[in-house]
Amino acid sequence: MISHRTKGVFAITPTPFKPDGALDLASLRPMTEWYLERKVDGLTILGILGEAQKLLPEESEAVVREIVAAAAGKSVIVGVSAPGFVAMRSLALKSMEFGAAGVMMTPPAAMRTDEQIAGWVRNAVRAIGEDIPFVLQDHPTATGVVMAPRVIRQIVEEIPSCVMLKHEDWPGLEKLTALRRWQQQGEMRPISILCGNGGMFLDFEMQRGADGAMTGYAFPEMLRRVVDLSEHDDGAASDIFDAHLPLLRYEQQAGVGLAVRKYILKQRGAIAHDALRTPGPSLSEEARDEVERLLRRLAARDPDCGSTS
Amino acid sequence: MISHRTKGVFAITPTPFKPDGALDLASLRPMTEWYLERKVDGLTILGILGEAQKLLPEESEAVVREIVAAAAGKSVIVGVSAPGFVAMRSLALKSMEFGAAGVMMTPPAAMRTDEQIAGWVRNAVRAIGEDIPFVLQDHPTATGVVMAPRVIRQIVEEIPSCVMLKHEDWPGLEKLTALRRWQQQGEMRPISILCGNGGMFLDFEMQRGADGAMTGYAFPEMLRRVVDLSEHDDGAASDIFDAHLPLLRYEQQAGVGLAVRKYILKQRGAIAHDALRTPGPSLSEEARDEVERLLRRLAARDPDCGSTS
Amino acid sequence: MISHRTKGVFAITPTPFKPDGALDLASLRPMTEWYLERKVDGLTILGILGEAQKLLPEESEAVVREIVAAAAGKSVIVGVSAPGFVAMRSLALKSMEFGAAGVMMTPPAAMRTDEQIAGWVRNAVRAIGEDIPFVLQDHPTATGVVMAPRVIRQIVEEIPSCVMLKHEDWPGLEKLTALRRWQQQGEMRPISILCGNGGMFLDFEMQRGADGAMTGYAFPEMLRRVVDLSEHDDGAASDIFDAHLPLLRYEQQAGVGLAVRKYILKQRGAIAHDALRTPGPSLSEEARDEVERLLRRLAARDPDCGSTS
Amino acid sequence: MISHRTKGVFAITPTPFKPDGALDLASLRPMTEWYLERKVDGLTILGILGEAQKLLPEESEAVVREIVAAAAGKSVIVGVSAPGFVAMRSLALKSMEFGAAGVMMTPPAAMRTDEQIAGWVRNAVRAIGEDIPFVLQDHPTATGVVMAPRVIRQIVEEIPSCVMLKHEDWPGLEKLTALRRWQQQGEMRPISILCGNGGMFLDFEMQRGADGAMTGYAFPEMLRRVVDLSEHDDGAASDIFDAHLPLLRYEQQAGVGLAVRKYILKQRGAIAHDALRTPGPSLSEEARDEVERLLRRLAARDPDCGSTS
Repeated sequence: MISHRTKGVFAITPTPFKPDGALDLASLRPMTEWYLERKVDGLTILGILGEAQKLLPEESEAVVREIVAAAAGKSVIVGVSAPGFVAMRSLALKSMEFGAAGVMMTPPAAMRTDEQIAGWVRNAVRAIGEDIPFVLQDHPTATGVVMAPRVIRQIVEEIPSCVMLKHEDWPGLEKLTALRRWQQQGEMRPISILCGNGGMFLDFEMQRGADGAMTGYAFPEMLRRVVDLSEHDDGAASDIFDAHLPLLRYEQQAGVGLAVRKYILKQRGAIAHDALRTPGPSLSEEARDEVERLLRRLAARDPDCGSTS
Repeated sequence: MISHRTKGVFAITPTPFKPDGALDLASLRPMTEWYLERKVDGLTILGILGEAQKLLPEESEAVVREIVAAAAGKSVIVGVSAPGFVAMRSLALKSMEFGAAGVMMTPPAAMRTDEQIAGWVRNAVRAIGEDIPFVLQDHPTATGVVMAPRVIRQIVEEIPSCVMLKHEDWPGLEKLTALRRWQQQGEMRPISILCGNGGMFLDFEMQRGADGAMTGYAFPEMLRRVVDLSEHDDGAASDIFDAHLPLLRYEQQAGVGLAVRKYILKQRGAIAHDALRTPGPSLSEEARDEVERLLRRLAARDPDCGSTS
Repeated sequence: MISHRTKGVFAITPTPFKPDGALDLASLRPMTEWYLERKVDGLTILGILGEAQKLLPEESEAVVREIVAAAAGKSVIVGVSAPGFVAMRSLALKSMEFGAAGVMMTPPAAMRTDEQIAGWVRNAVRAIGEDIPFVLQDHPTATGVVMAPRVIRQIVEEIPSCVMLKHEDWPGLEKLTALRRWQQQGEMRPISILCGNGGMFLDFEMQRGADGAMTGYAFPEMLRRVVDLSEHDDGAASDIFDAHLPLLRYEQQAGVGLAVRKYILKQRGAIAHDALRTPGPSLSEEARDEVERLLRRLAARDPDCGSTS
Repeated sequence: MISHRTKGVFAITPTPFKPDGALDLASLRPMTEWYLERKVDGLTILGILGEAQKLLPEESEAVVREIVAAAAGKSVIVGVSAPGFVAMRSLALKSMEFGAAGVMMTPPAAMRTDEQIAGWVRNAVRAIGEDIPFVLQDHPTATGVVMAPRVIRQIVEEIPSCVMLKHEDWPGLEKLTALRRWQQQGEMRPISILCGNGGMFLDFEMQRGADGAMTGYAFPEMLRRVVDLSEHDDGAASDIFDAHLPLLRYEQQAGVGLAVRKYILKQRGAIAHDALRTPGPSLSEEARDEVERLLRRLAARDPDCGSTS
């Protein structure tokens, strides 16, 4: 089970589909093993990267069951956000039953004021049950919901099962500092903070007090090394980070970024097909050439990572 | 099956829940009959008013099956909009199998340009099948997607299975006129246009060339009479419309409007409980008093309608 | 000067332009007198209805000077919202110098969290000066900024020069009740609340504790009578309100509503031309016919008001 | 005058303020010279980076006059976007009179459909005059206005004075390719395309057919070299680009990014003070440390650029 002490690298995984759009169940185990070989501490599944919104409930459940079974005891966090609490509760309970380590959720776009946000989380927790540890996902660029540090603190203080923040505000460095300061001053109980934003600010997020990374970058081994090095050698961490930044940045294109990641993950052998389920973008020939160029340049700068396998 | 010649009143129905949030299956038949007694031409189910987003797929299917069975041959249109085409296809096919008259769908919030909107509809139709007649829902106040008259014409021209527009732009009177003018000039094939917006502009929409109403106002008999009278006595139509406008306007409050409608529909005997599924708003005591006051005043001005039964 | 005890009807005035788009300075005095003859308690100028964003600073100043001079001692509130505080300060100081009774401002669209909203208002007040009484405009349908009752209370408690709320949330009745309850329980200092939203909920807003109306409806005499009657005869107030609701609702169309108001105000002799400054909508022939029809029907139901003069 | 053949680097300049918020007129000439020493082909002033919205009209005019005078014949493009056409016309005419090379404008947030966007531009051009060459700014992340390639082509075809596109869509590489393809196939007349987005995709934009860069990155000499090298040695161009990417990315934080740029520009001697006009963000101590660290690392990787002077 995840807790406020959880640290390290959680890779956000895609959901593999066959070229005809069918769920590629057979790829779930090898994909999971591929991530574990890259020494991640856990996996986060059924997020936006996982095209969770396009899955039928029985498909979501199958994905959770297969990946948890293949994860060999590593923590699996399941994204359960949905417009209705009935669906959220159903997937959350099934996930925990299958052995997930916790769930992740984010308030929907209509939530604006501090009161609305805190109220939604309170009701959501009542719906899924107060015994399931959950990650609060703070993701304004996707949802438009802006959570002030203050409302995060309020949620953390009120709800014991909120053990982790997926930090994905942009810009968000000052928010990280504000939360850690409160924690140090005893004004907020400790919480785990893992960072998203495609990893674009991971170098500084670690310096600001993050506990690690939770993102879907196609080279999780970079996340691993940057997170590990950050504690004692931030120069070396930055060197590795900077080597990956050109590709990282390319993945950060809305929409098409997911197609880029699946394209690379297929090349690296993590998944059998790079198909997205419709509706979804595809890569132009020009874009594929650009990715290939970025991979070649990466291989030159970071030989450990650059080979696609 | 709905066609471009479909006219009249389609009531948008709520989905009845029990106080504990469970789907109230037992209410579906009597609710359907209640609407039919008010002489509607058809029903539209699983829209926003129907809290469709909060239903599990098997619940949606149960709702379609029960209502179609109870509708005694009247047309039932099923809202199938979903983030993924797999879910849309599944519900659309099941609905038609159960005997629905067509489906309704609307492009999601991310669609902005004419090209994106037309492209999404094209792909959605490919997903559900080109033989299912569908209603294009134009609902910018809910989705933020603005469809120019031009893009509606493009969709109508390209896709034969698009037989109806649910017109719900605000303001939208000029759009109605533009579409009808093209149709008269032979620049667009004929299409049925039913109007939503809670009925707030029904009086003028009928004069601008609408074929009827598709909305969830709690007194469908008003919609019936206004639509029927509009053709030959628009003064009488306006008299009835104006009598209902104070209540109509009260229902037009975002969020709480649905709670108002369920409250009235319960009082009128259409449904057994006025519960909304969480997350959802509830009525304060003050709001209930206001609704009661509006109902009393309505009874005085429109005795045919005003009694709550 | 406006204060927390200000009550009654503040008409929001348009800014008159000549057909070529030039500011129609000559109309400002007769327009002001026209409103005073309708017994309003004050005027609010340079709001959205006043096309304030399209004026040059020297034009805004001319409008304030002329209208204050013509207002014969009646209170004039000046909208001063602008992207930069330098412009806000400049217009606020000039307005008070000319004899305005206060200014009105609203946080810009980027403000989302309670903290951001309260912070913006604090800085804005520092910019214009703490001695100018101001109206906090709460207008989420125009700006997207949602102010929880709690953040309004915080602003009122922190900033003595905040003396009035222009209440324009939709739906907003529960917010009114929440604020008045705090006030009665001594948890918030008293504040004047005048209601906008085009008057669409004025009947109930008065029952919920509003102090009056601040809106641009083209028949301010209706606002006058509804506000006056609300205290002792809410049935009579509703009768008058309901008679105007069909037209009120027609004016509530985004964009084109302003063209409707100017059309009617010109017919009624308040302004010499109904031109809007570009960019802005214009009325189609169909829309003009609809307005004429609404005016005829109004004249039949409310003879005191219905004649256009 | 700018034309469809304009190429190279246009630096977007900030507007210098004194610590008390007053316009720092004395810095305009040395700042302009600082940019010219870095061999830019032109300057773009009064954009978002230039805090144009916070200037009074007379301040905007002073900025244009001073910078054009100091620019020694280099092209100066003036951002003139404003809510009203009267203000746009006024600033555009003054700018051309002072010797500007053209103006830049972007449709406001309310424009959604292709028709609305093209209509707005048509009216704007009528307002400022059809003889002023202008840059169409395509900036969806700031305005929410999404321009399909098709609507850009329509504007280019209809309006001869549209000579340049400031390309700032994200992701936008496919848009660039689509426009260039039409141009090559004779389906769109030639147009200059300079790229913004803070330079984050400049390496690939040049390969996709851009004519250069128009952005405010604090090291314009990097833009210069990347643009120059792109034609014959894209490897060398990428090497330089990648060396700057860590800082470039740091500047790309909404809001605070402008404070970062001014901080660096002050250090580099381009401006005397790094003050932003209120309301605006400021840099925390942690952020300043991060910038210093990025500058040190940049100096190691790109000795030509890295010294702050």
